[in-house]
Amino acid sequence: MLTVLQIDFPFNGPFAEKMHEAMQGLAESIIQEPGLIWKIWTENADTQEAGGVYLFTDATAAQHYLDMHSARLTDSGVIGIRAKLFSVNGPLSQICKGPLA
Amino acid sequence: MLTVLQIDFPFNGPFAEKMHEAMQGLAESIIQEPGLIWKIWTENADTQEAGGVYLFTDATAAQHYLDMHSARLTDSGVIGIRAKLFSVNGPLSQICKGPLA
Repeated sequence: MLTVLQIDFPFNGPFAEKMHEAMQGLAESIIQEPGLIWKIWTENADTQEAGGVYLFTDATAAQHYLDMHSARLTDSGVIGIRAKLFSVNGPLSQICKGPLA
Repeated sequence: MLTVLQIDFPFNGPFAEKMHEAMQGLAESIIQEPGLIWKIWTENADTQEAGGVYLFTDATAAQHYLDMHSARLTDSGVIGIRAKLFSVNGPLSQICKGPLA
Protein backbone atom coordinates (compact mmCIF):
# COMPACT_ATOMS: atom_id res chain seq x y z
CA MET A 1 0.00 0.00 0.00
CA LEU A 2 1.26 3.46 -0.90
CA THR A 3 2.90 5.05 2.13
CA VAL A 4 3.73 8.66 2.96
CA LEU A 5 6.73 9.42 5.14
CA GLN A 6 6.97 12.86 6.75
CA ILE A 7 10.32 13.80 8.28
CA ASP A 8 11.37 17.14 9.73
CA PHE A 9 14.07 18.27 12.13
CA PRO A 10 15.83 21.38 13.47
CA PHE A 11 18.20 22.70 10.81
CA ASN A 12 20.31 25.85 10.70
CA GLY A 13 21.01 25.86 6.99
CA PRO A 14 22.09 26.17 4.29
CA PHE A 15 18.71 26.94 2.73
CA ALA A 16 17.38 27.52 -0.79
CA GLU A 17 20.02 27.59 -3.55
CA LYS A 18 22.91 26.96 -1.13
CA MET A 19 21.02 23.92 0.18
CA HIS A 20 20.65 22.72 -3.39
CA GLU A 21 24.38 23.10 -4.00
CA ALA A 22 25.29 21.31 -0.76
CA MET A 23 22.86 18.39 -1.15
CA GLN A 24 22.63 17.69 -4.86
CA GLY A 25 24.64 14.49 -4.55
CA LEU A 26 22.51 13.29 -1.65
CA ALA A 27 19.36 13.94 -3.67
CA GLU A 28 20.75 11.96 -6.59
CA SER A 29 21.37 9.02 -4.26
CA ILE A 30 18.00 9.26 -2.50
CA ILE A 31 15.95 8.89 -5.69
CA GLN A 32 17.71 5.54 -6.21
CA GLU A 33 16.38 4.13 -2.90
CA PRO A 34 14.22 0.99 -3.19
CA GLY A 35 10.51 1.69 -3.25
CA LEU A 36 10.80 5.48 -3.40
CA ILE A 37 8.42 7.08 -5.92
CA TRP A 38 9.26 10.71 -5.11
CA LYS A 39 10.52 13.09 -2.44
CA ILE A 40 9.69 16.76 -1.95
CA TRP A 41 12.46 18.57 -0.05
CA THR A 42 11.10 20.95 2.57
CA GLU A 43 12.75 23.86 4.39
CA ASN A 44 11.77 26.72 6.68
CA ALA A 45 14.45 29.32 7.35
CA ASP A 46 12.14 31.23 9.73
CA THR A 47 11.66 28.28 12.09
CA GLN A 48 15.09 26.78 11.30
CA GLU A 49 13.71 23.43 10.18
CA ALA A 50 14.04 21.19 7.16
CA GLY A 51 12.88 17.77 6.08
CA GLY A 52 10.98 15.97 3.40
CA VAL A 53 7.74 14.41 2.31
CA TYR A 54 8.17 11.05 0.58
CA LEU A 55 5.90 8.66 -1.28
CA PHE A 56 6.88 4.99 -1.15
CA THR A 57 5.35 1.96 -2.85
CA ASP A 58 4.78 0.24 0.52
CA ALA A 59 5.23 0.57 4.27
CA THR A 60 8.16 -1.84 4.47
CA ALA A 61 10.25 0.24 2.05
CA ALA A 62 9.28 3.44 3.88
CA GLN A 63 10.27 2.02 7.28
CA HIS A 64 13.57 0.72 5.91
CA TYR A 65 14.38 4.12 4.44
CA LEU A 66 13.38 5.88 7.66
CA ASP A 67 15.70 3.67 9.72
CA MET A 68 18.62 4.30 7.33
CA HIS A 69 17.98 8.03 6.90
CA SER A 70 17.47 8.65 10.64
CA ALA A 71 20.83 7.04 11.35
CA ARG A 72 22.47 9.15 8.62
CA LEU A 73 20.93 12.36 9.98
CA THR A 74 21.97 11.50 13.53
CA ASP A 75 25.50 10.75 12.35
CA SER A 76 25.62 14.20 10.74
CA GLY A 77 24.68 15.85 14.05
CA VAL A 78 20.91 16.25 13.64
CA ILE A 79 18.86 15.88 16.81
CA GLY A 80 15.11 16.08 17.33
CA ILE A 81 13.97 14.15 14.25
CA ARG A 82 10.19 13.91 13.90
CA ALA A 83 8.94 11.22 11.55
CA LYS A 84 5.52 9.77 10.78
CA LEU A 85 4.34 7.05 8.42
CA PHE A 86 0.86 7.04 6.93
CA SER A 87 -1.10 4.96 4.49
CA VAL A 88 -2.60 6.88 1.59
CA ASN A 89 -6.35 7.04 1.15
CA GLY A 90 -6.34 6.61 -2.61
CA PRO A 91 -9.91 7.56 -3.59
CA LEU A 92 -9.95 10.74 -1.48
CA SER A 93 -6.49 11.69 -2.74
CA GLN A 94 -7.59 11.19 -6.34
CA ILE A 95 -10.47 13.62 -5.81
CA CYS A 96 -7.88 16.12 -4.58
CA LYS A 97 -5.47 15.51 -7.50
CA GLY A 98 -2.95 13.80 -5.21
CA PRO A 99 0.13 12.71 -7.18
CA LEU A 100 0.23 8.99 -6.45
CA ALA A 101 2.01 7.69 -9.56
CA MET B 1 6.76 30.19 -3.37
CA LEU B 2 5.41 26.65 -3.39
CA THR B 3 4.44 25.64 0.14
CA VAL B 4 3.87 22.24 1.73
CA LEU B 5 1.39 21.94 4.59
CA GLN B 6 1.55 18.82 6.79
CA ILE B 7 -1.41 18.22 9.10
CA ASP B 8 -2.08 15.21 11.31
CA PHE B 9 -4.21 14.55 14.36
CA PRO B 10 -5.58 11.76 16.55
CA PHE B 11 -8.45 10.03 14.71
CA ASN B 12 -10.46 6.95 15.58
CA GLY B 13 -11.92 6.30 12.15
CA PRO B 14 -13.52 5.57 9.81
CA PHE B 15 -10.50 4.48 7.75
CA ALA B 16 -9.93 3.27 4.19
CA GLU B 17 -13.09 2.77 2.09
CA LYS B 18 -15.42 3.87 4.90
CA MET B 19 -13.35 7.06 5.25
CA HIS B 20 -13.75 7.62 1.52
CA GLU B 21 -17.51 7.21 1.77
CA ALA B 22 -17.76 9.54 4.76
CA MET B 23 -15.54 12.30 3.39
CA GLN B 24 -16.06 12.34 -0.36
CA GLY B 25 -18.04 15.59 -0.20
CA LEU B 26 -15.38 17.22 1.96
CA ALA B 27 -12.69 16.19 -0.52
CA GLU B 28 -14.70 17.66 -3.40
CA SER B 29 -14.86 20.97 -1.54
CA ILE B 30 -11.20 20.97 -0.48
CA ILE B 31 -9.88 20.74 -4.04
CA GLN B 32 -11.75 23.99 -4.76
CA GLU B 33 -9.80 25.92 -2.09
CA PRO B 34 -7.81 28.92 -3.36
CA GLY B 35 -4.18 28.16 -4.05
CA LEU B 36 -4.42 24.40 -3.49
CA ILE B 37 -2.58 22.35 -6.11
CA TRP B 38 -3.17 18.93 -4.55
CA LYS B 39 -3.81 17.07 -1.30
CA ILE B 40 -2.83 13.53 -0.35
CA TRP B 41 -5.12 12.12 2.34
CA THR B 42 -3.22 10.20 5.00
CA GLU B 43 -4.39 7.69 7.59
CA ASN B 44 -2.91 5.26 10.10
CA ALA B 45 -5.35 2.86 11.73
CA ASP B 46 -2.59 1.35 13.90
CA THR B 47 -1.68 4.64 15.57
CA GLN B 48 -5.23 6.04 15.24
CA GLU B 49 -4.16 9.12 13.30
CA ALA B 50 -5.13 10.82 10.07
CA GLY B 51 -4.28 13.98 8.21
CA GLY B 52 -3.01 15.26 4.93
CA VAL B 53 -0.08 16.55 2.93
CA TYR B 54 -0.92 19.56 0.78
CA LEU B 55 0.88 21.54 -1.89
CA PHE B 56 -0.12 25.20 -2.21
CA THR B 57 0.97 27.86 -4.68
CA ASP B 58 2.19 30.13 -1.85
CA ALA B 59 2.53 30.46 1.91
CA THR B 60 -0.35 32.93 2.29
CA ALA B 61 -2.85 30.51 0.74
CA ALA B 62 -1.48 27.65 2.85
CA GLN B 63 -1.76 29.65 6.09
CA HIS B 64 -5.30 30.76 5.22
CA TYR B 65 -6.34 27.16 4.57
CA LEU B 66 -4.67 25.97 7.77
CA ASP B 67 -6.56 28.54 9.84
CA MET B 68 -9.89 27.56 8.25
CA HIS B 69 -9.28 23.80 8.36
CA SER B 70 -8.01 23.83 11.95
CA ALA B 71 -11.19 25.60 13.06
CA ARG B 72 -13.28 23.07 11.12
CA LEU B 73 -11.45 20.12 12.68
CA THR B 74 -11.76 21.61 16.16
CA ASP B 75 -15.48 22.19 15.63
CA SER B 76 -15.85 18.52 14.69
CA GLY B 77 -14.23 17.46 17.97
CA VAL B 78 -10.62 16.93 16.87
CA ILE B 79 -7.97 17.81 19.45
CA GLY B 80 -4.19 17.62 19.22
CA ILE B 81 -3.76 18.98 15.68
CA ARG B 82 -0.12 19.08 14.51
CA ALA B 83 0.56 21.32 11.53
CA LYS B 84 3.74 22.54 9.84
CA LEU B 85 4.36 24.78 6.85
CA PHE B 86 7.46 24.48 4.70
CA SER B 87 8.83 26.07 1.58
CA VAL B 88 9.75 23.66 -1.18
CA ASN B 89 13.33 23.35 -2.35
CA GLY B 90 12.54 23.13 -6.03
CA PRO B 91 15.84 21.96 -7.54
CA LEU B 92 16.38 19.19 -4.97
CA SER B 93 12.74 18.09 -5.31
CA GLN B 94 13.08 17.95 -9.09
CA ILE B 95 16.05 15.59 -8.75
CA CYS B 96 13.81 13.38 -6.60
CA LYS B 97 10.85 13.51 -9.04
CA GLY B 98 8.83 15.66 -6.61
CA PRO B 99 5.37 16.42 -8.05
CA LEU B 100 5.37 20.23 -7.99
CA ALA B 101 2.95 20.99 -10.84
